[in-house]
Amino acid sequence: MMLQCSLCGAAVREDSLLWRCGCGAPFKADFGGIPPMNRKRIRSGEQGMWRYGASLPLERPEEKVSFGEGWTPLVREEWNGMKLFLKLDFACPTGSYKDRGMAYLVSRLRDQGIHEVIEDSSGNAGASMAAYCARAGIRCRVFVPSYTSEGKCVQVASYGAELERVPGTREDTTRAAEKAAETAFYASHNWSPWFAHGIKTFAFELWEQLGFTAPDAVLLPAGQGSLVLGCALAFEELLSSGEIETLPKIFALQPKNCAPLEEAFREGKPIPGKVRKTETIAEGISSAEPVRGREVLEAVRKSGGAVLSFSDREIWDGFVKLARRGYFVEPTSAIVAAAAERLSRDGGVGRRDTVAAVLTGSGLKGSGKILSLFASPPED
Amino acid sequence: MMLQCSLCGAAVREDSLLWRCGCGAPFKADFGGIPPMNRKRIRSGEQGMWRYGASLPLERPEEKVSFGEGWTPLVREEWNGMKLFLKLDFACPTGSYKDRGMAYLVSRLRDQGIHEVIEDSSGNAGASMAAYCARAGIRCRVFVPSYTSEGKCVQVASYGAELERVPGTREDTTRAAEKAAETAFYASHNWSPWFAHGIKTFAFELWEQLGFTAPDAVLLPAGQGSLVLGCALAFEELLSSGEIETLPKIFALQPKNCAPLEEAFREGKPIPGKVRKTETIAEGISSAEPVRGREVLEAVRKSGGAVLSFSDREIWDGFVKLARRGYFVEPTSAIVAAAAERLSRDGGVGRRDTVAAVLTGSGLKGSGKILSLFASPPED
Ligand SMILES: [Zn+2]
Ligand SMILES: [Zn+2]
Repeated sequence: MMLQCSLCGAAVREDSLLWRCGCGAPFKADFGGIPPMNRKRIRSGEQGMWRYGASLPLERPEEKVSFGEGWTPLVREEWNGMKLFLKLDFACPTGSYKDRGMAYLVSRLRDQGIHEVIEDSSGNAGASMAAYCARAGIRCRVFVPSYTSEGKCVQVASYGAELERVPGTREDTTRAAEKAAETAFYASHNWSPWFAHGIKTFAFELWEQLGFTAPDAVLLPAGQGSLVLGCALAFEELLSSGEIETLPKIFALQPKNCAPLEEAFREGKPIPGKVRKTETIAEGISSAEPVRGREVLEAVRKSGGAVLSFSDREIWDGFVKLARRGYFVEPTSAIVAAAAERLSRDGGVGRRDTVAAVLTGSGLKGSGKILSLFASPPED
Repeated sequence: MMLQCSLCGAAVREDSLLWRCGCGAPFKADFGGIPPMNRKRIRSGEQGMWRYGASLPLERPEEKVSFGEGWTPLVREEWNGMKLFLKLDFACPTGSYKDRGMAYLVSRLRDQGIHEVIEDSSGNAGASMAAYCARAGIRCRVFVPSYTSEGKCVQVASYGAELERVPGTREDTTRAAEKAAETAFYASHNWSPWFAHGIKTFAFELWEQLGFTAPDAVLLPAGQGSLVLGCALAFEELLSSGEIETLPKIFALQPKNCAPLEEAFREGKPIPGKVRKTETIAEGISSAEPVRGREVLEAVRKSGGAVLSFSDREIWDGFVKLARRGYFVEPTSAIVAAAAERLSRDGGVGRRDTVAAVLTGSGLKGSGKILSLFASPPED
């Protein structure tokens, strides 16, 4: 399999084990002659997201690394008169949508015969990577900032991954991981060309669960933007196979306290610039330097959608509204409710439009934090 | 719909809103002329467990209360040479298998036009009841012992249920709930005749996911025993419709520190007697007085299985073994790994047998407790 630089176009072989191009940009996967997804290519006998395995090529498909992730429920709600479908991806095996990306990423690591990897994350990706590496028999070291709470570490450590606590900032953690990557493969999900292809299965599911139609708009939390990229990959495939006629509008959602994509989108810039980042309750999408910012902005613009930002207060109000309807999600995930609230009131989507939103992570990941937010909610 | 006493056989109408028989025993549901499940009755267009909706009668099926729960992954493992299939029911919307029972129970409450209910639980059932009542628009009061941790309460409270903290023992909490039930419907899942019918869908799924065959044995955590009852209901239906030829052996699993069913099984008694209960890490199945003990024992005996008990040390070892394979579950759920360990070593199941086990609850529900167990594991 070949990799292609997303910026300069340079091509390298996957087994070079390079995790980024010499020019500094991330790679994309080049699937060569594989036809795009259509309904005849669905493997209905396979579990979960692997019903779309025809678009997830592997050397040894029978040895994929899987917990049967995906094929999550899609639940219809009315939101101020708007037809909203919630995709319950928090009901994945490790409690977040990242499992889709990791199932494919770690399957490809096993295909390549890789025995030891490094990841940096303090959140859902680290937990997911640790779980899939446990199943694959791959040694996994997860670098986390030393301020990461014990509660977050326990899931990662339970899976048997080695935790490396790095003093300093989140950026110091990334630097420590990159340095360690001199002796083991740096499997960073943000740099990986495979991760977004695993993620794209959520969008195939939306299409199939909506009776083989695309929604008119999709609401996606965006930090590094893997949901945006996965969404674009999926609907591009369906467009080119003739299954759908137009791309859904992608609304990428960021917290006001860390919104580099939103700023670049608003200012018409092709890549996100430096932003000042302050604390936010949407910690899962608090990424000041999105690795694939250029690709994410391109995907949103091409879809006719937008990047929107929300205050912590709006996000928290969204959390409460979702919970009162029976959805207990991470505060990060609640940003889709804030968006539903705004778009349904200001007419950002049409009255008869079908809107879909991904609920990305389980509230059980942050019960302690949620408790303290009830005690002192974010101010306006 | 009619209810029938599980002990004296007395029949009452469902709309009598009685939650137990005058003789003190719990009711069973009388489904009358509804034919048992077979593969032609599967509704493959329905989400999750509702593909078996033909065996879950409702007055208004289109208004069922659902988050698309069920149809959870089934993952194959080798366990000391034993062929073990793990059913990932912790990946249900509220993080436990209880959602199956609640989806059906709360749908029936709505069918009956009930607007306010009472439940007592400090754990998974309370959270699940609160979530489904939120979706159904039913007011829900959950009685919990006052010693229940804040972390456990936050999920229930987020869904908008009213928490009533009761001083004293767990039994005092039940008494308080029963007393409050004089003014609102006592929807206790343990007493409900519907709950086990929702639960039975996990067993239909096992059958379908195993290619329309029954496993040879099923490993089920058992406190009140709703998984055992659901399992028996499902496979009885499949037996009577001719889909399977023999019932799988049911192994009901209890912690040594609270094992009334195991004691009664071992001593050949028809109902569990009084037991001394001490603290256990398997708190989700620490039920000293199982309401349906007689029915549970009957089901296990009829299947040719057994009730087994395990020390906290064995359960904890099971937790670690599961986590190292990528399954992060509640310590309670890990009792199935303790059972797999014992049965695979002592020949309790045959070498070529297919064994299935339900992973009932997410480890994310008890990260803090798991952390402290790593620090000081239970002793031998
Ligand atoms: Zn390049
Ligand atoms: Zn009776």
